[in-house]
Amino acid sequence: MRQVESQIRVRYSETDQMGIVYYANYFAWMEVGRVDYCSAAGFEYRDMERDDGALLTVTEARCRYRAPARFHDQVRLLTWVIESRSRTIRFAYEIRRLPDDELLATGETLHTVIDRQGKTIRLPQKYRQYFPLSAKA
Amino acid sequence: MRQVESQIRVRYSETDQMGIVYYANYFAWMEVGRVDYCSAAGFEYRDMERDDGALLTVTEARCRYRAPARFHDQVRLLTWVIESRSRTIRFAYEIRRLPDDELLATGETLHTVIDRQGKTIRLPQKYRQYFPLSAKA
Amino acid sequence: MRQVESQIRVRYSETDQMGIVYYANYFAWMEVGRVDYCSAAGFEYRDMERDDGALLTVTEARCRYRAPARFHDQVRLLTWVIESRSRTIRFAYEIRRLPDDELLATGETLHTVIDRQGKTIRLPQKYRQYFPLSAKA
Amino acid sequence: MRQVESQIRVRYSETDQMGIVYYANYFAWMEVGRVDYCSAAGFEYRDMERDDGALLTVTEARCRYRAPARFHDQVRLLTWVIESRSRTIRFAYEIRRLPDDELLATGETLHTVIDRQGKTIRLPQKYRQYFPLSAKA
Repeated sequence: MRQVESQIRVRYSETDQMGIVYYANYFAWMEVGRVDYCSAAGFEYRDMERDDGALLTVTEARCRYRAPARFHDQVRLLTWVIESRSRTIRFAYEIRRLPDDELLATGETLHTVIDRQGKTIRLPQKYRQYFPLSAKA
Repeated sequence: MRQVESQIRVRYSETDQMGIVYYANYFAWMEVGRVDYCSAAGFEYRDMERDDGALLTVTEARCRYRAPARFHDQVRLLTWVIESRSRTIRFAYEIRRLPDDELLATGETLHTVIDRQGKTIRLPQKYRQYFPLSAKA
Repeated sequence: MRQVESQIRVRYSETDQMGIVYYANYFAWMEVGRVDYCSAAGFEYRDMERDDGALLTVTEARCRYRAPARFHDQVRLLTWVIESRSRTIRFAYEIRRLPDDELLATGETLHTVIDRQGKTIRLPQKYRQYFPLSAKA
Repeated sequence: MRQVESQIRVRYSETDQMGIVYYANYFAWMEVGRVDYCSAAGFEYRDMERDDGALLTVTEARCRYRAPARFHDQVRLLTWVIESRSRTIRFAYEIRRLPDDELLATGETLHTVIDRQGKTIRLPQKYRQYFPLSAKA
């Protein structure tokens, strides 16, 4: 279970008037993590969309917030795959603040592979190597 | 269980290159729903923050996406409270597309009441009437 | 010179830690104003993109901020066209806070008509009625 | 005239259904550039706000878009100061796409120094060294 690390500097635009990062923005960070995961696995998500017409649409997303991220914090995002099926992939995430590595949030997203018309498809064979099928429960 | 309805016109800025609404933006809509819920219940969330120093920070958020929202869709958002305790409130949401009322997404958020220093507090007494305590399970 | 009015309730997600609306978000409001301008003029911008493949890409944008908008403010946005040429349209905006109508910001955006491949084109003839050619200076 | 470089990987969340980066997001990038400018100059913008109560609010912003940025592009942002007065600072920006260094956009922002109550103040003396007064025109 490969964990891929991304580092993100919190932007001013990501804060809200509570003085902390607005909760929806953690989901944009998770997307950064997924893209980095793909790069680390050996392909670019951009190419999968552009060249092979396979898109990972989001069907579920959740986040549990444990401590707030603040402007200019350097956060460390860990991304990994917890389930991979013929038509779906489930990612998990941990978001930690550097340098103390305090856990800020954990999350999960479930994705369905679709084509450009929005129809559910199987993950193209050439990408299966990057997402080995999960063992049946 | 009062359900409060908000109506939202999807903005161009809320779409992504998949041609649909970016998944994180549904959480911003849920926040619109919470604010409208408070208005319908009889107070303004803004005043609770500004005048009474009680803030509803988000501790959990989840969304299940069933059909995509697209630019210029008119969406109908239903918001209600499913659990209310001394220090926490849990909201639920349904997002539907008009005019056919197709279900686009369902969601939940859990909130903790904090003061301006970020410390967990009890919901101030004057707001308890709007969030009657849930029966113990 | 038709001015079209939009009304927008400031969202929590649009604030930043300064306690006011983040400056980039005014440009998303201007886009809401443009879409409302088209509806008021007699067509839907969505249809122009989707059915006729004519897109109004942004080539210049500016905003002058005079007073801050805050969470839950009701703002009134006025949108109008100040220049219309064969391949470009220039919009102007005023953003005011209700109920006192205090001027919060003024702005302008310049748009070029492009097709789906990103090539500059003339505004399709059927839309010219909504954007009469400006007199030469 | 010191130019400070930032590098930004375009996020999926920053695109819109035109398949390019939504125009308002360039202003969020400029803010990343300002923060990096301060770090390179010798102080953290966060500290100026938090410890000294001096905030750089935006009073004007403009951007000229020359070529679109797309998802996963690596962009290079150059930030510098073009005018510095007792109460205002004007930044300029260039945004280029790597690796070919094609110019995507140029911009400017004008900032007024305010205190936490929103009152215009002089830039605190300790920060003047980082923003030498511009020669009178």
